[in-house]
Amino acid sequence: MTKRNATAAVIGAGDYIGSEIAKKFAAEGFTIFAGRRNGDKLAPLVKEIEAAGGEIHARSLDARKEDEIVSFLSDADKHAPLDVCIFNIGANVNFPILDTTERVFRKVWEMACYSGFLAGREAARLMLPRGQGNIFFTAATATLPGGPAYPAFPGPKFGLRAVAQSIARELGPKNIHVAHLVIDSGVDTEWVRQRRVEAYGPDALNNPDLLMPPSSVADSYWQLYQQPRSAWTFEMEIRPFGEKW
Amino acid sequence: MTKRNATAAVIGAGDYIGSEIAKKFAAEGFTIFAGRRNGDKLAPLVKEIEAAGGEIHARSLDARKEDEIVSFLSDADKHAPLDVCIFNIGANVNFPILDTTERVFRKVWEMACYSGFLAGREAARLMLPRGQGNIFFTAATATLPGGPAYPAFPGPKFGLRAVAQSIARELGPKNIHVAHLVIDSGVDTEWVRQRRVEAYGPDALNNPDLLMPPSSVADSYWQLYQQPRSAWTFEMEIRPFGEKW
Amino acid sequence: MTKRNATAAVIGAGDYIGSEIAKKFAAEGFTIFAGRRNGDKLAPLVKEIEAAGGEIHARSLDARKEDEIVSFLSDADKHAPLDVCIFNIGANVNFPILDTTERVFRKVWEMACYSGFLAGREAARLMLPRGQGNIFFTAATATLPGGPAYPAFPGPKFGLRAVAQSIARELGPKNIHVAHLVIDSGVDTEWVRQRRVEAYGPDALNNPDLLMPPSSVADSYWQLYQQPRSAWTFEMEIRPFGEKW
Amino acid sequence: MTKRNATAAVIGAGDYIGSEIAKKFAAEGFTIFAGRRNGDKLAPLVKEIEAAGGEIHARSLDARKEDEIVSFLSDADKHAPLDVCIFNIGANVNFPILDTTERVFRKVWEMACYSGFLAGREAARLMLPRGQGNIFFTAATATLPGGPAYPAFPGPKFGLRAVAQSIARELGPKNIHVAHLVIDSGVDTEWVRQRRVEAYGPDALNNPDLLMPPSSVADSYWQLYQQPRSAWTFEMEIRPFGEKW
Repeated sequence: MTKRNATAAVIGAGDYIGSEIAKKFAAEGFTIFAGRRNGDKLAPLVKEIEAAGGEIHARSLDARKEDEIVSFLSDADKHAPLDVCIFNIGANVNFPILDTTERVFRKVWEMACYSGFLAGREAARLMLPRGQGNIFFTAATATLPGGPAYPAFPGPKFGLRAVAQSIARELGPKNIHVAHLVIDSGVDTEWVRQRRVEAYGPDALNNPDLLMPPSSVADSYWQLYQQPRSAWTFEMEIRPFGEKW
Repeated sequence: MTKRNATAAVIGAGDYIGSEIAKKFAAEGFTIFAGRRNGDKLAPLVKEIEAAGGEIHARSLDARKEDEIVSFLSDADKHAPLDVCIFNIGANVNFPILDTTERVFRKVWEMACYSGFLAGREAARLMLPRGQGNIFFTAATATLPGGPAYPAFPGPKFGLRAVAQSIARELGPKNIHVAHLVIDSGVDTEWVRQRRVEAYGPDALNNPDLLMPPSSVADSYWQLYQQPRSAWTFEMEIRPFGEKW
Repeated sequence: MTKRNATAAVIGAGDYIGSEIAKKFAAEGFTIFAGRRNGDKLAPLVKEIEAAGGEIHARSLDARKEDEIVSFLSDADKHAPLDVCIFNIGANVNFPILDTTERVFRKVWEMACYSGFLAGREAARLMLPRGQGNIFFTAATATLPGGPAYPAFPGPKFGLRAVAQSIARELGPKNIHVAHLVIDSGVDTEWVRQRRVEAYGPDALNNPDLLMPPSSVADSYWQLYQQPRSAWTFEMEIRPFGEKW
Repeated sequence: MTKRNATAAVIGAGDYIGSEIAKKFAAEGFTIFAGRRNGDKLAPLVKEIEAAGGEIHARSLDARKEDEIVSFLSDADKHAPLDVCIFNIGANVNFPILDTTERVFRKVWEMACYSGFLAGREAARLMLPRGQGNIFFTAATATLPGGPAYPAFPGPKFGLRAVAQSIARELGPKNIHVAHLVIDSGVDTEWVRQRRVEAYGPDALNNPDLLMPPSSVADSYWQLYQQPRSAWTFEMEIRPFGEKW
């Protein structure tokens, strides 16, 4: 591994997608700044990346707090120039409209949209003076098919996409690649496996080709990172080959 | 005018679109409940509707406050069954990403998306037991073309659309018509006229066919209201014939 | 009924949607020019419209033949100014890709897209010198849910939409209203009823709210016709309230 | 270069995008089958690929002729298993609706949509028995901004996209990757450069960041080819970083 003088920040470094992204970029020589609500849970990731010879700084981070985002990204940038910022926070709640409290509606928006805006803005602030960088957003994904789409969730989802698109249009000509990765399938996590079994019975997991391995998401980000600026993709939709769409 | 035993609530009864909607539904026999931030500004509308023999109740209403929405709609419903609820609050701010404060981002969302969720939910709560009703949303419209679309605004705009669509899918089969009216042009208001002159010079207003008369928006809502339930439209996009799109 | 000095041409005047459109516009005082492949089948429609005091000219028309479209519309226009042209030809075939012959692929395109182009162009040619008119397209609708969407059909469907949109953008500023009506459900025809029973069993028709009555399509066209030019809709999507979407 | 036992067919191997695709896949070890209307014009490409140690078979090919597509792809497959088929034929005509002859409308569809259907179907026929393959479509691109979009062109463009999507949905679960590459900018060709100078004056080419280098298109196809089947992209949109969108 050749060490780069560059950091990659992963906001929402959960056990699955976020961790795989961190490992991929660490393996490519980036110093990783990984943040999640409870930073203690990052211990296994730190161990794995360091064992592989990579460098990672793990932090507790509430991405809905402006000052926490500011200091997280600014610390990353002080360590080495912030080259990549990946926002990877999802929020997945399903309530009928009458049961959606204002507190839930607001909280889901804060997690899935507002915190994405904060991350994008602060990454841009650090990248613009150097005239380069990459800001990527993972589209919140619906993991369980069927049933009406309930109000709280799709609002922030489309809101985040709109934020990403606006930033992309504004920052593209300034040499900052902004992309929005849409995962059009369930991702292979313990939580999704359990939901599928609950919804469809024990046979639900027989077809391994219907769940996206988290490492494939990381690989897709690496593809986006490698695109030359003469052919940047803003939105990339990925799904396993067996997915019905 | 034949008086109906039904109320139509207009949330965001501004001087232009909201007022025209109120006048149209008043003229069709509905009792109007009109709310806007500063209820005192509703005096001319009250005068005009009452002079024409209509009935209107004007209220100060901060649509971002859950309790205010709850009591506004519930008062309307106590007066006569709430048959129509039209959410008509826009928010239009344009800042580059670095200049968009968290306060502005949050406020725009609260005005354009969160308050729409509150209105939709509370209207649904009142309409569902009777098994009928109409909930309409005016899509926030971009009044000035050109320039990059900035982050704060499109997020809530797409968020509101997603909220409206979720509600439509959930409530349609329960006989409640939910629609989203998209105005794809500038609306003929004093503010828009001034912005156009500033942006394009004194000739900007020479072509009267490029601005949407507020009363045409009201007529479009009336069309939506009249649709039989066997052929409901969820999204209706309107533009003046001279608009370039 | 007040007779108008205007004709409405219905291209694809089938037993259901097309006939209802013809009856609606005849009842509103238009002289109808109705064309379908086998003009003899128009006899019941002629009888019904004439019994109601309306005027209709029935023709055999192969809409894929340029000269037939030219003379059909030009005859209509000679009778009285052509004010409305409604293209209502569908084509619905479902084959897996390997089974789609080039003959089928071509034929479906000719019926669903190419003939729509011919109709739009010739109507425009007659309307432009007078500076007014209405050209409406019925979006081919998928009547049976489920299964993969097969290649022959969606191509022409999206092609027709693109043709309609291009014409709308070009002719709108010249005061010609071009619209595209999307029927997002099965329409209540004998053919659709049979398919549903075959696909879902005898209970498939228990819920009458899931099929669009053909007369509701006609009513939607009448709404589009009545829109003031200050608020024209290009695309209107309609579905029965009970439809799951 | 490691030689592969696989062919890549390029249908529409023009001087720019098509040639770059052929060179890229040749450099990766594929045997290339390259077809264009006038096969003689492929001489420089053959020379370049062979000089670099690659293998290419150049053919005259009218992609609108079913038998020519059948024999072109089947010859490719006989040489070595057909692993990649890239359909790269564009058609770009701009006429106002009244000036669009039926001949032009039909011809553009045959070039941009019908021939894509033929290519996709025949590639699928060869790939399905082996249970693997890649079928990629270059989205016809609008190279000149401004002015109304005219009728002939967008129809086939959306038709091709619909064909590609249908094939993708049908063949994805059978392990064939179908993708649609959308180039959202002008491509750097002599023809586009001349049009830009004509439209905007001699300064139109000052900003080299606004034209897509043809080799970047080829690189994007290579990215698509490399995607693991656990994370396939159907549609990928690419634009140069300086493009306004």
